[in-house]
Amino acid sequence: MSKTVTGCLLIIGNEILSGRTQDTNLAHLARELNEVGVRMVHARVIPDVEDIIVNTVNECRALYNHVFTTGGIGPTHDDITADCIARAFNTELYFHPDVVEIINRRKAPPDAMEARLRMARIPKGATLIDNPTGGPPGFQMENVYVMAGVPMVMQAMVSTLTKERLGGGDPVRSRSVGVYLGESTVAADLREIQGRYPEIDLGSYPFYREDGYGTNLVMRGTNETELDEMLREIESMIRNLGAEPFYDQ
Amino acid sequence: MSKTVTGCLLIIGNEILSGRTQDTNLAHLARELNEVGVRMVHARVIPDVEDIIVNTVNECRALYNHVFTTGGIGPTHDDITADCIARAFNTELYFHPDVVEIINRRKAPPDAMEARLRMARIPKGATLIDNPTGGPPGFQMENVYVMAGVPMVMQAMVSTLTKERLGGGDPVRSRSVGVYLGESTVAADLREIQGRYPEIDLGSYPFYREDGYGTNLVMRGTNETELDEMLREIESMIRNLGAEPFYDQ
Repeated sequence: MSKTVTGCLLIIGNEILSGRTQDTNLAHLARELNEVGVRMVHARVIPDVEDIIVNTVNECRALYNHVFTTGGIGPTHDDITADCIARAFNTELYFHPDVVEIINRRKAPPDAMEARLRMARIPKGATLIDNPTGGPPGFQMENVYVMAGVPMVMQAMVSTLTKERLGGGDPVRSRSVGVYLGESTVAADLREIQGRYPEIDLGSYPFYREDGYGTNLVMRGTNETELDEMLREIESMIRNLGAEPFYDQ
Repeated sequence: MSKTVTGCLLIIGNEILSGRTQDTNLAHLARELNEVGVRMVHARVIPDVEDIIVNTVNECRALYNHVFTTGGIGPTHDDITADCIARAFNTELYFHPDVVEIINRRKAPPDAMEARLRMARIPKGATLIDNPTGGPPGFQMENVYVMAGVPMVMQAMVSTLTKERLGGGDPVRSRSVGVYLGESTVAADLREIQGRYPEIDLGSYPFYREDGYGTNLVMRGTNETELDEMLREIESMIRNLGAEPFYDQ
């Protein structure tokens, strides 16, 4: 069995918990991590409250190989993530000269510049996470990766996190197949097949479409040979039940 | 200050953590809870692993007034939420006659019926959560509300959770206003205004559109008079900065 490198995402922001904003960062990060061999195993959504952020970061960084955060690194009063990370690591913020330089490239009135310079406050000991959109970077403090909440910016930052930086294992691969049969019809066979492939995670997801209902079957794991074998068994199972597999997603 | 009734959502499912499926249940539930005076203050996404589900349910039901779960109540091998809830409450599952009756309404071959009847296994002491789509219901065990993961079904179940059942407080209301000014330009004034309205949560969210960039300002709270006053102050602030407020969302 290949080494599993685990990841946890902390989504920081009242706007997600209030339902105002639909998070998409979790799904994006999860898919990118699959490619570099990090398995997302946990995520939390927490409010912009200092004690909660500090305690959650400290709890999760001890439990998972990597902790990613999104949100709370902008220039306003509700952007407190950097302060919280510094507190969690019992260190201080300082104005990182490289970030100050990036921020100074864009001119602004004094009040606005003072607010923007908040984004140059980086915990002592952290390294930067590049921001290919040209704005202020995120930062990495030990195994905690602090990134923007705006999806466009977050995605740019994630694109710079290489397999080498994250010490990732084998990429997590998947196979999937759909069938116009209800979950209950395939349940017994699935359970039996899953039992024979303990290293592969087999999920079963009902769908409802205009042309009927059915089930998507998704296999995930790092061993491509086993994934292919399991897929063939599931295709046989489907045909034995008198249906045809399909692959439109 | 009105009583705050807190809610926590546990999203159970590997498909969310792998990035295969985009969760939408959090945002939906959060908005519905606002209406019945329950404030979502925490959410977690956890895998289909029994010990993790049991421990997370037990941790969270002690911390929040209500814990909602989505996912893992279908008929297949990866649907283990009911078993986990029973274990968390140190009780047993039994075949609930009302649910058996609902499931028996739709005929199925013996294998499929056996799988479907798994969905009638309800922890002793639980009450049902109606499923207006006509399928098997969810259930409530003390302050834990167990619902389907499929959004259509989940939304139907949520629609039956009344303010009375949840003992909700005042509805959480919001005001929002947009401005074509960067966050850094409004940051100093916002901080000052937030300071004068400690009961209102003021969030600032940057946006980027084809016609420019700007900031959405969102106020949330239960006191409508204060919300309106704060909105007027923010509108004045915007005009003082030489811009115009807009309200397209």
